[in-house]
Amino acid sequence: MRVLGVDPGLTRCGLGVVDGRLGRARMVAVGVVRTPSDGDPGERLVFLEREMEGWLDRYRPDVVAVERVFADSNITNVMSTAHATAVALLAATKREVPVVFHTPTEVKAAVTGSGRADKAQVTAMVTRILGLASPPRPADAADALALAICHAWRGAQSARLDALAKAARG
Amino acid sequence: MRVLGVDPGLTRCGLGVVDGRLGRARMVAVGVVRTPSDGDPGERLVFLEREMEGWLDRYRPDVVAVERVFADSNITNVMSTAHATAVALLAATKREVPVVFHTPTEVKAAVTGSGRADKAQVTAMVTRILGLASPPRPADAADALALAICHAWRGAQSARLDALAKAARG
Repeated sequence: MRVLGVDPGLTRCGLGVVDGRLGRARMVAVGVVRTPSDGDPGERLVFLEREMEGWLDRYRPDVVAVERVFADSNITNVMSTAHATAVALLAATKREVPVVFHTPTEVKAAVTGSGRADKAQVTAMVTRILGLASPPRPADAADALALAICHAWRGAQSARLDALAKAARG
Repeated sequence: MRVLGVDPGLTRCGLGVVDGRLGRARMVAVGVVRTPSDGDPGERLVFLEREMEGWLDRYRPDVVAVERVFADSNITNVMSTAHATAVALLAATKREVPVVFHTPTEVKAAVTGSGRADKAQVTAMVTRILGLASPPRPADAADALALAICHAWRGAQSARLDALAKAARG
């Protein structure tokens, strides 16, 4: 299963492509799309959409996994994260690529075993799981890869449970 | 000046087109785009984008005025409003139509004279200003028209002040 992980943001949007199956994951690509925080809001979204479309067309993921955002004390952060999420939803849906959401806790638990792991622990585990020579930078890139690993593994686990249930029934 | 007012939302997105100059306003079109709250989030955004693009292409506004959203106790509301706002920003920017934001207080003050007017007062004034036979329904439609009137009048006022300043200088 190939997953495009998206850590949504307008100033920095982390993107990471992973091929994964239960317990295994290989990095295909990683990057960060940046738009100037003093730029025109519409232009920033259009730029991000073009980049996102480029990634979808180049890597053809089976699914896009996006971080689900909850409340933030800073409403501006929430809004720009939501705008970037909308761009990902639009671009993927138009290509008939399903979009799934995972909370930060789910992602941390999937890659480190603890939902309360800090950023350094997540980055360290992503580096180890993917067998990278050096940790992905910035943190948004590591987060996007962690999202992709999380979904690839959870998806594989669900598929395995479905198969076991089917076998038990049949 | 022709303004497309957008009261952003996913379940109901109010759209209103107004031709206006200082103290005058004529309604060109009004409507509400609805998407099912239990629908796929991506499909809802794609549908809203198509509708928004249709309005932009049909009515060719000089500017799009969107309600600026602040904190809401319900994060789901904030997110879906932000997603709808992103759709408006993308569609307008791709057509090189500028997007402006007005707060609910600015809109209420522009059409009723008080930033603390309630929904019924806003609807009543919109109906009166535009000389409509009956109040626009639902409230989202009236809000979209109020936004468009607000921007048409504020824009006209700024242009007038600019002209006066220029005359004073020259």
